[in-house]
Amino acid sequence: MSSSSSTTATATATVTNNNSNNTSCCSSSSTVLSRKCFNSDCMDFKSRKGWRLRSGDFAELCDRCASAHEEGRFCETFHLNASGWRGCESCGKRVHCGCIVSLQAFTLLDAGGIACMACARKNFCYDVKPCLASFILSLSFS
Amino acid sequence: MSSSSSTTATATATVTNNNSNNTSCCSSSSTVLSRKCFNSDCMDFKSRKGWRLRSGDFAELCDRCASAHEEGRFCETFHLNASGWRGCESCGKRVHCGCIVSLQAFTLLDAGGIACMACARKNFCYDVKPCLASFILSLSFS
Repeated sequence: MSSSSSTTATATATVTNNNSNNTSCCSSSSTVLSRKCFNSDCMDFKSRKGWRLRSGDFAELCDRCASAHEEGRFCETFHLNASGWRGCESCGKRVHCGCIVSLQAFTLLDAGGIACMACARKNFCYDVKPCLASFILSLSFS
Repeated sequence: MSSSSSTTATATATVTNNNSNNTSCCSSSSTVLSRKCFNSDCMDFKSRKGWRLRSGDFAELCDRCASAHEEGRFCETFHLNASGWRGCESCGKRVHCGCIVSLQAFTLLDAGGIACMACARKNFCYDVKPCLASFILSLSFS
């Protein structure tokens, strides 16, 4: 999704956990919608799990989008023109920061900038989950 | 720090927890260095705490940089030309994503994009720590 996407659409998607399977009071059009791939750029029907949502559930994706996600190609396929891309400080690989899809693809460096997970593990003896450090950091604001 | 900063310098800073107070075997030049503000763009001496480092310690900053950090102005002061900036999907406020300094300034949206913390709290009944959701997400990779 590009950064120019509809704010309303994004907010609605987030608050209502978009694309859930609850179709108890749906019209046929919303039933179709509920079966659609979570990727707003895709019209296929969902069939497989994608990234974790904030609720803990998974985004449900079509086969093609799920494959792109599993292979780490989702952002470069669908978010190429979105903002937020940064280069790994070690190898230069571009990573889509500020995107829930690429949350596991990089780690933050103390002095600023990022390292892709391959470089983080290689250069920084990185052996914890990428977001665990973020969680620890957040405790300072408790 | 801009994305063009030295890779070596960044890696060293991360691995050795740069700017620590351990000066037991330092020359006078390295002693001076150890008293310097953690912000590589600043030559002042450190005096106050800044952001949390991955180790759990705090970056030690000079008074001016610490003030900028406390007031949420650090990235727009020192990282303005760096990559990674994204606009809040609700209000458009620009946030420096992929930067440890601004880790607490935004939350990730399910469908992609970000919300600044003010909009996240207002629009999404957001009442957990910004990184707690990230931590929960990371558990899926355990």
